[in-house]
Amino acid sequence: MKTKKIAVLQGDYIGPEIMSAGLEVLEAARQGTDFEYQIHKYNFGGEAIDKCGEPLPQSTIEGCKSSDAILLSAIGGPKWDKASVRPEAGLLTIRNELGLFANIRPTKINPILARKSPIKEEVIQNTDFVIVRELTSGIYFGTPRKKDEHEAIDTSSYTVEEIERIMHIGFEMSMHRKKHVTVVDKANVLATSKLWREVAQKMSNEYPQVEVDYCYVDAAAMKIITQPSSFDVVITANLFGDILSDEASVLTGSLGTIPSMSTGVNGPSLYEPIHGSAPDIAGKGIADPISMIQSIEMMLRESFAEYEIADRIARAVEQTIETGIVTPDLGGKATTKEVIEQIIENLRG
Amino acid sequence: MKTKKIAVLQGDYIGPEIMSAGLEVLEAARQGTDFEYQIHKYNFGGEAIDKCGEPLPQSTIEGCKSSDAILLSAIGGPKWDKASVRPEAGLLTIRNELGLFANIRPTKINPILARKSPIKEEVIQNTDFVIVRELTSGIYFGTPRKKDEHEAIDTSSYTVEEIERIMHIGFEMSMHRKKHVTVVDKANVLATSKLWREVAQKMSNEYPQVEVDYCYVDAAAMKIITQPSSFDVVITANLFGDILSDEASVLTGSLGTIPSMSTGVNGPSLYEPIHGSAPDIAGKGIADPISMIQSIEMMLRESFAEYEIADRIARAVEQTIETGIVTPDLGGKATTKEVIEQIIENLRG
Ligand SMILES: CC(C)[C@H](C(=O)O)[C@@H](O)C(=O)O
Ligand SMILES: CC(C)[C@H](C(=O)O)[C@@H](O)C(=O)O
Repeated sequence: MKTKKIAVLQGDYIGPEIMSAGLEVLEAARQGTDFEYQIHKYNFGGEAIDKCGEPLPQSTIEGCKSSDAILLSAIGGPKWDKASVRPEAGLLTIRNELGLFANIRPTKINPILARKSPIKEEVIQNTDFVIVRELTSGIYFGTPRKKDEHEAIDTSSYTVEEIERIMHIGFEMSMHRKKHVTVVDKANVLATSKLWREVAQKMSNEYPQVEVDYCYVDAAAMKIITQPSSFDVVITANLFGDILSDEASVLTGSLGTIPSMSTGVNGPSLYEPIHGSAPDIAGKGIADPISMIQSIEMMLRESFAEYEIADRIARAVEQTIETGIVTPDLGGKATTKEVIEQIIENLRG
Repeated sequence: MKTKKIAVLQGDYIGPEIMSAGLEVLEAARQGTDFEYQIHKYNFGGEAIDKCGEPLPQSTIEGCKSSDAILLSAIGGPKWDKASVRPEAGLLTIRNELGLFANIRPTKINPILARKSPIKEEVIQNTDFVIVRELTSGIYFGTPRKKDEHEAIDTSSYTVEEIERIMHIGFEMSMHRKKHVTVVDKANVLATSKLWREVAQKMSNEYPQVEVDYCYVDAAAMKIITQPSSFDVVITANLFGDILSDEASVLTGSLGTIPSMSTGVNGPSLYEPIHGSAPDIAGKGIADPISMIQSIEMMLRESFAEYEIADRIARAVEQTIETGIVTPDLGGKATTKEVIEQIIENLRG
């Protein structure tokens, strides 16, 4: 089996802490298997601004393009708030450069962690959905974008091809799940949303087994709170996905555990925690490593089809949560190190 | 005192039921005061499509323009889903025709009704904020908007003047509240949001007593659920306001009670419940009249400075909720008629 090349963007503040924790777990989990990999670190975000003067150096783009998968932790923070180009600008460029047009975010309730959810237990129970967000078009990338002292303009545009390929990802995903797609748009106002609906309606003919419904984004923002278990696969445009996936993430009560995946047609996919670089707890050794570990688990499944290793990691994490050895964000007292030591022990056990 | 002219748009499905309930309460509340008014009904929405072939006839625009305030219940529904122009199109046009550039939506927790909230009580307690949504510009009205078989385009634009006038409303409002403004935008991506921030920063110099902070829309969508009591006045663009104000409304556990106001520079303001026309319960006599009654209360305060009448209505509604005489949406067994009879009795008591 070919050695996999994993590009590692270790990020800022708690980024390096959770990345090295995640990589330790990966190494422990692969032992005794024939899965071989190599880690290549590249500068990205604030670290790259400091070392190379820009958040996404060309060498990082090339390194990522030549890899089999990319792991990113979290970037940005107050240190670069006044930088002429901010770390986050690198995020938009890397998505575009690597053609990562689909962002996948699972929202699944872990009954133990759900105690920390702001939502009542009877409302969130059985919640298990995925938001499929278009990531390289819409108002994030449309032109003209301009601003002078009188006026500013942003443009949202979508081509049929761009909508088709993201719909395709969502419909395919639903076939392995509950076969239920919800297209979220604002078709009562926006031309782009009307086109989304037309493409979705055509695509639904190709997937007669899939139940498809349509929901305006304002109604979806309500339903995510009131009836989260009614969703299976939500497909939506870039800006709506940005808002709704962050909204959905708080249902779990455990932001520090949620992974995400960004993927395209060819080339490597990128895996990252959904949370930020948490400057307030950086260096204290108490950052929650679980979202990074679950991002690695997602990579093993989706990029490398290493289901057995991924399943073992999932179980080891689950057991660690059950025994209550968790970081303060989840109501525990453990350090990052204690959490991964427990996970590694569970992996061996 | 001059007789006030109130334009009434009674709407579709439960619209007429809650409107006539609201007007009965208004009439009972004004008795014994010197507040005089006249009601003028105009066709709007689905009713107008049926009678005049369009959702917003010219006669309705003129009638509204010549009134001192406008009451709207709720429009639209399945009957007109296939209409060439849908009832909701009338909403966008009336906002534009009347220059109603600011939409004000209170989110306040009533401790009794909060039991029905999907959010845990300890999270929502003390929540009391207002979303000030820009209503006549942004991506709702920007041009070009187009769609062909390959591509669709929407344009979001904001001028400095448009941003200034909505900021002004929000900052003024905060002066009568907790003096805390949160500007919600997506300034890490959008040019229009960057302009919003610049205008807000300038305006904040004119209000040195007001604490101003800035929040990205994705983070705001989280914070509305996790820390709703941290907000006072939220000022945001049209599309963001559409999404966030619907999201916020479910915190209360009582959609059927929330009023809203749309206002402009000159001319009458418009008051309406935030909920829809509820086709499923139309004609059953169980629609919750409270949002309509509270919309009327808001009109008495904001358009007519009739604080005494408004206060009495507020107390009578509050007492009715306390005695549990509420419609099924609030967990009660009362009919619309029983609710307003109780409110009227409380007004007299
Ligand atoms: C940092 C920002 C540009 C980015 C986005 O809006 O896409 C972030 O919110 C995200 O969701 O990854
Ligand atoms: C019906 C629709 C066009 C409208 C809007 O998006 O403004 C509605 O959602 C609202 O908030 O009043």
